[in-house]
Amino acid sequence: MAKNLFLLPGDGIGPEAMGEVRKIIAHMNDAMGADFALDEGLVGGSAYDAHGAAISEEDMAKAMAADAVLFGAVGGPKWDHVPYEVRPEAGLLRLRKDMELFANLRPAICYPALASASSLKPELVEGLDILIVRELTGGVYFGEPKEIIDLGNGQKRGIDTQVYDTYEIERIAGVAFELARTRKNAVCSMEKRNVMKSGVLWNQVVTETHKRSYSDVKLEHMLADAGGMQLVRAPKQFDVIVTDNLFGDMLSDVAAMLTGSLGMLPSASLGAPDAKTGKRKALYEPVHGSAPDIAGKGIANPIAMIASFAMCLRYSFNMVKEADNLEKAIANVLDQGIRTSDIMAEGARQVGTTEMGDAILKE
Amino acid sequence: MAKNLFLLPGDGIGPEAMGEVRKIIAHMNDAMGADFALDEGLVGGSAYDAHGAAISEEDMAKAMAADAVLFGAVGGPKWDHVPYEVRPEAGLLRLRKDMELFANLRPAICYPALASASSLKPELVEGLDILIVRELTGGVYFGEPKEIIDLGNGQKRGIDTQVYDTYEIERIAGVAFELARTRKNAVCSMEKRNVMKSGVLWNQVVTETHKRSYSDVKLEHMLADAGGMQLVRAPKQFDVIVTDNLFGDMLSDVAAMLTGSLGMLPSASLGAPDAKTGKRKALYEPVHGSAPDIAGKGIANPIAMIASFAMCLRYSFNMVKEADNLEKAIANVLDQGIRTSDIMAEGARQVGTTEMGDAILKE
Ligand SMILES: CC(C)[C@H](C(=O)O)[C@@H](O)C(=O)O
Ligand SMILES: CC(C)[C@H](C(=O)O)[C@@H](O)C(=O)O
Repeated sequence: MAKNLFLLPGDGIGPEAMGEVRKIIAHMNDAMGADFALDEGLVGGSAYDAHGAAISEEDMAKAMAADAVLFGAVGGPKWDHVPYEVRPEAGLLRLRKDMELFANLRPAICYPALASASSLKPELVEGLDILIVRELTGGVYFGEPKEIIDLGNGQKRGIDTQVYDTYEIERIAGVAFELARTRKNAVCSMEKRNVMKSGVLWNQVVTETHKRSYSDVKLEHMLADAGGMQLVRAPKQFDVIVTDNLFGDMLSDVAAMLTGSLGMLPSASLGAPDAKTGKRKALYEPVHGSAPDIAGKGIANPIAMIASFAMCLRYSFNMVKEADNLEKAIANVLDQGIRTSDIMAEGARQVGTTEMGDAILKE
Repeated sequence: MAKNLFLLPGDGIGPEAMGEVRKIIAHMNDAMGADFALDEGLVGGSAYDAHGAAISEEDMAKAMAADAVLFGAVGGPKWDHVPYEVRPEAGLLRLRKDMELFANLRPAICYPALASASSLKPELVEGLDILIVRELTGGVYFGEPKEIIDLGNGQKRGIDTQVYDTYEIERIAGVAFELARTRKNAVCSMEKRNVMKSGVLWNQVVTETHKRSYSDVKLEHMLADAGGMQLVRAPKQFDVIVTDNLFGDMLSDVAAMLTGSLGMLPSASLGAPDAKTGKRKALYEPVHGSAPDIAGKGIANPIAMIASFAMCLRYSFNMVKEADNLEKAIANVLDQGIRTSDIMAEGARQVGTTEMGDAILKE
């Protein structure tokens, strides 16, 4: 049966990076009989330009029906002043919410060849391998009320609501504990229970979930601000970090930057397994943004997008060997000193987007 | 007229660090005729042990009446399980709220002698001098509803509310722009306008305040997650950062850790100038916490507490020369290679809390 992939390249460097994934998929279909069926849609600013919405209903329906969605990046100065409801990010947020992709997996790994590119001292990041498990469909991103009220007298009031229910915390904690068992078996949960009631509940539910079903996994709790500090001070102390939507946004960006490998980092956003088929809805996207300043120049680094496809092979199609091979190809190419401009180093060979894709394909 | 200081040493290493400030104050009174009048109270866990509250009404009244409050640190494992309403942090949050200390100034500076203690490469932090201006009486810290609801069926719901009104954003932006004029004249405002309505309002009001009264200052906007990344990547690009209560909590901790000087960093929390007297309510506290693991051992670094007192001299009493001298004394002692254990380096001389205080006093 064909594996249905829905591609949403988006804006900025998204389409260029996605082009390299297309090449890899074509190769897997032609030379390896992989049977991927591709369809493609618009999201973000490019969808706004075409349809006046950050994603059309038709493309939403295709995303819902696909086996997996590959997502590029959205946004750019061109759309800085479009109405809030149709801003580029709204497309991504709707995909996450409607597909119920509650589990966002963000590995922060340091490619050995790139340790020196980190702003941290190399010994602090060499061999770094953290997995941040971020809750993605709750919290302040989606809670209501979320509005700006006019109070009169020239005063307005901006309101956002952070909401977490027990079941939401339980299921994301479960994902973190399960994944920890396949790694170093340690989870650190981060919240601000000293100032937030949702943090108090988060802490309780993670603790109970641990006691009930995962007491073999090492569990630690840390305040999110202290967690940010510890990430900078000694990132290797962490294995799996589980945290809410907003803290996850901040902390995973800090962690990504630490690695020196920002342009290389993928992410997976997963739903719950279907009761009948066991299949999870899933979306894969690079951690980096749309980088409008370098878009269209053929110099963007496609590695994060390619690594996101590797995660797709692993999590959506259980093609573990193929995923391993693709990840190894990326590491090999970096070891050979082949670099796009963002990760250029002395003595390395600088290449553009397509050459990088070709080099990985060759491997 | 006597200058009334109210000391709240708090828990953990708070009392030890405060002891060193007492010595400096005594010296200023005796040898320099400074006329400080001291009173002292309890806050945090120690107040809970004595009164069953994180701060007593009597001590709150004294804090409200004082010219300035010096605050040590609160919290420790001993009080991890006291009820939410009387947890140690509640004392600090009540002081901030009742004294209306809306402007939290957190300098992140890298003492030259300590650049190598940073986890960042020295060239990225040498000479670093950022001022984070954090809104301190609004946002998700205080917005209502803030509660845990029992939904039945074993489900609970944790709710926190992020609220900002125009005037709150205006006044903190004003503080940031004013301070920028005394520095490198550049402000970077951080929020998440792409997902939060309060972020949209924040962005608008900062932009308008700038246009109306501070167009001579350079203003930039950054998404808070990107801001966290940029702090790690290239912190020296920033002069003044202005942000909300929760982002300020996270970002100032990351910035503090970057400097390698965490045990050295002070903060000031200021209210609005009184309409008649022009005086601001103020509280000064170290950025570091109560460090219960090393409390009572005489090894805590008192520099952040002493530097907080220097900020007090500057902002509450306009004793600019004295503040400069005290800050210079700290830098000199570090240059001489005198170090507490937290900042120990090869070839330096390791001292305890009181010797560090004495060394600074001598300078
Ligand atoms: C684009 C934006 C809405 C998004 C977020 O805040 O979640 C991004 O920062 C991310 O981390 O995926
Ligand atoms: C102790 C805690 C309530 C406090 C905060 O979250 O504001 C602390 O982290 C700080 O930054 O001053």
